[in-house]
Amino acid sequence: MAQQSSSSVKPIAMLKDELDIVIPTIRNLDFLEMWRPFFEQYHLIIVQDGDPSKTIKVPQGFDYELYNRNDINRILGAKASCISFQDSGCRCFGFLVSKKKYIYTIDDDCFVAKDPSGKEINAVEQHIKNLLSPSTPHYFNTLYDPYRDGADFTRGNPFGMNQGDFTQGAKTVVSHGLWLNFPDYDALTQLVKPHARNSRQIIIHRDNKFSFPISLFVYRYVDAVMTIPKGTLFSMCGMNLAFDRELIGPAMYFGLMGDGQPITGYDDMWAGWCMKVICDHMGWGVKTGLPYIDHKKASNQIENLKKKLDGIFWQEEAVPFFQSVTLPKECTSVKQCYLELAKLVKEKLGKVDPYFVKLADGMVTWTEAWDELNTPKGN
Amino acid sequence: MAQQSSSSVKPIAMLKDELDIVIPTIRNLDFLEMWRPFFEQYHLIIVQDGDPSKTIKVPQGFDYELYNRNDINRILGAKASCISFQDSGCRCFGFLVSKKKYIYTIDDDCFVAKDPSGKEINAVEQHIKNLLSPSTPHYFNTLYDPYRDGADFTRGNPFGMNQGDFTQGAKTVVSHGLWLNFPDYDALTQLVKPHARNSRQIIIHRDNKFSFPISLFVYRYVDAVMTIPKGTLFSMCGMNLAFDRELIGPAMYFGLMGDGQPITGYDDMWAGWCMKVICDHMGWGVKTGLPYIDHKKASNQIENLKKKLDGIFWQEEAVPFFQSVTLPKECTSVKQCYLELAKLVKEKLGKVDPYFVKLADGMVTWTEAWDELNTPKGN
Repeated sequence: MAQQSSSSVKPIAMLKDELDIVIPTIRNLDFLEMWRPFFEQYHLIIVQDGDPSKTIKVPQGFDYELYNRNDINRILGAKASCISFQDSGCRCFGFLVSKKKYIYTIDDDCFVAKDPSGKEINAVEQHIKNLLSPSTPHYFNTLYDPYRDGADFTRGNPFGMNQGDFTQGAKTVVSHGLWLNFPDYDALTQLVKPHARNSRQIIIHRDNKFSFPISLFVYRYVDAVMTIPKGTLFSMCGMNLAFDRELIGPAMYFGLMGDGQPITGYDDMWAGWCMKVICDHMGWGVKTGLPYIDHKKASNQIENLKKKLDGIFWQEEAVPFFQSVTLPKECTSVKQCYLELAKLVKEKLGKVDPYFVKLADGMVTWTEAWDELNTPKGN
Repeated sequence: MAQQSSSSVKPIAMLKDELDIVIPTIRNLDFLEMWRPFFEQYHLIIVQDGDPSKTIKVPQGFDYELYNRNDINRILGAKASCISFQDSGCRCFGFLVSKKKYIYTIDDDCFVAKDPSGKEINAVEQHIKNLLSPSTPHYFNTLYDPYRDGADFTRGNPFGMNQGDFTQGAKTVVSHGLWLNFPDYDALTQLVKPHARNSRQIIIHRDNKFSFPISLFVYRYVDAVMTIPKGTLFSMCGMNLAFDRELIGPAMYFGLMGDGQPITGYDDMWAGWCMKVICDHMGWGVKTGLPYIDHKKASNQIENLKKKLDGIFWQEEAVPFFQSVTLPKECTSVKQCYLELAKLVKEKLGKVDPYFVKLADGMVTWTEAWDELNTPKGN
């Protein structure tokens, strides 16, 4: 028998039969030991990236299924081409095969963080609270999430509006958690200031020369959850993320990155931009803030710099593209929205680089794979 | 001589020759004693509301000018009709007569708050920091204000974009501070739950019956400053607010409320909605969050309930109106934007109630008064 967690009081696992935890990995999952009190009542879906002949050890006592590349190829056949290899974007295969309403996905270099009082943070519980309470994408509540315990709407916040009428809330479909320790920098910033901060523009201009003031990077714990307003994009990070798979799952494709592709590490941001445009269209909400996790390792900065650099140039095109997208009224389902978006990506971003044509094709293939694995039996 | 502050080390007063502190009041300004270390190097503009024959005592040692209703009438003549009476909206007269680049305005029931470490918060200093660093209205930075010390942009945040190019920032023109203690509720919510919280929709429906769970209201100190994204409205509160008077001053009209008008207490929200629409058009940024002040008193809930109730019905019309406003490209100055907005208020909200026609006229008169008092000599 595996050693039990030292904690004698187990937290109640909210929605334990309705949520899967998806973990992309290339290594033994020792990090799960720290998460035992919080994860062991949930079902885990482990997506093994890289060499499929390698054995990934999972600590005893966890309920899990594990898929390596051979499994992905076997299950999806030709459609497996849409799942990234050697990129954490492969996690979205776990979203495809899950049968649950909710997903929580976490990286294997993320550990349990502590709140300012020293208490261990139950990330899954906070994500579920975020998802189960409404969002306020149409009006900015300066006192943060008005649905949190102890919080409220400010004066002037309309009672009715187009936010689901008297409930004042939009359905929350994504909860984006934050992280302590390693900042989520782009590759350039990460290289230049592993322990420092400054204003970023100094780094890449002035004929490749740069200078910046050294100061220790302090990561503040900010006790807030908030809705990202309608019409506003953000950089979604996949390492501590929960969502309503039933509603927004078909838009949670992490793109085609890594091995065989010109870029890597843009998988979660790509998914975030697509998802946000669709949520805005559908009238759904996206929250960010709590819960925090503890991010212990940064990915290798040197190895993928070239591939990330292309991304840095392309994001200057991709973000304005997503900002300008308007989905037609006729798109009333996430699938319809997603296929329309794929069409627009091909048309508009295909001009920037042929890679985007390939990515758009991947988006279509993803939709087909989703339908194949997620059509109720008998249909 | 007035008693000096017990603090022996005075904080450095940032921009002391470029910022005026505007205080609307109906009582002796004893509250200034607590602010002495932070305010006494600045110039104060006190706008006395109510009976002009009453003498307002100002603690010794402060540099101030004080205007009562007689002064306002004398200085503005017929145009004085646009300045509210018996409503804190009268504060905007102070914005008119100031000659400084920046304004900080605070209510006389607001005291110095302490941060979680117990240190007194220098609200003016934090507001100035907010105003002097850029905003990010075009892309949501999940790690809050990237220009704060110790903070940064997340990966994926575009380098260029239409945010002032490589600086990535929009000019910040408004800094909206928050408050501890008394929440900023609307009149209904305030009556129903002076010490409690719940979800607001329960209160006004179910045939005038309501029920709600009692729990103590806890006001969290949230260590964050953030930009309110472009295209998103919020409820601006006037009790702890700073702005760039030179740039956005002409839009900082607090409306026509109080004595002789059907509503009261919507002055700051009205200004906030107008200002935000114009900032979005001009490409400027609005920040909210730090600094906190300590709000000791709530205004009398019963007295003005009727007048605030009208506002609650009208806000349901006003907010969608402001959300749908698009200012024409030809409006390239704040004055042009503001006059266009006044025209639209008259056209669209005038249908809701004749009061809005009067308010729109007040907006035009305000613009004329601004020009009269703020045209450089020789022009």
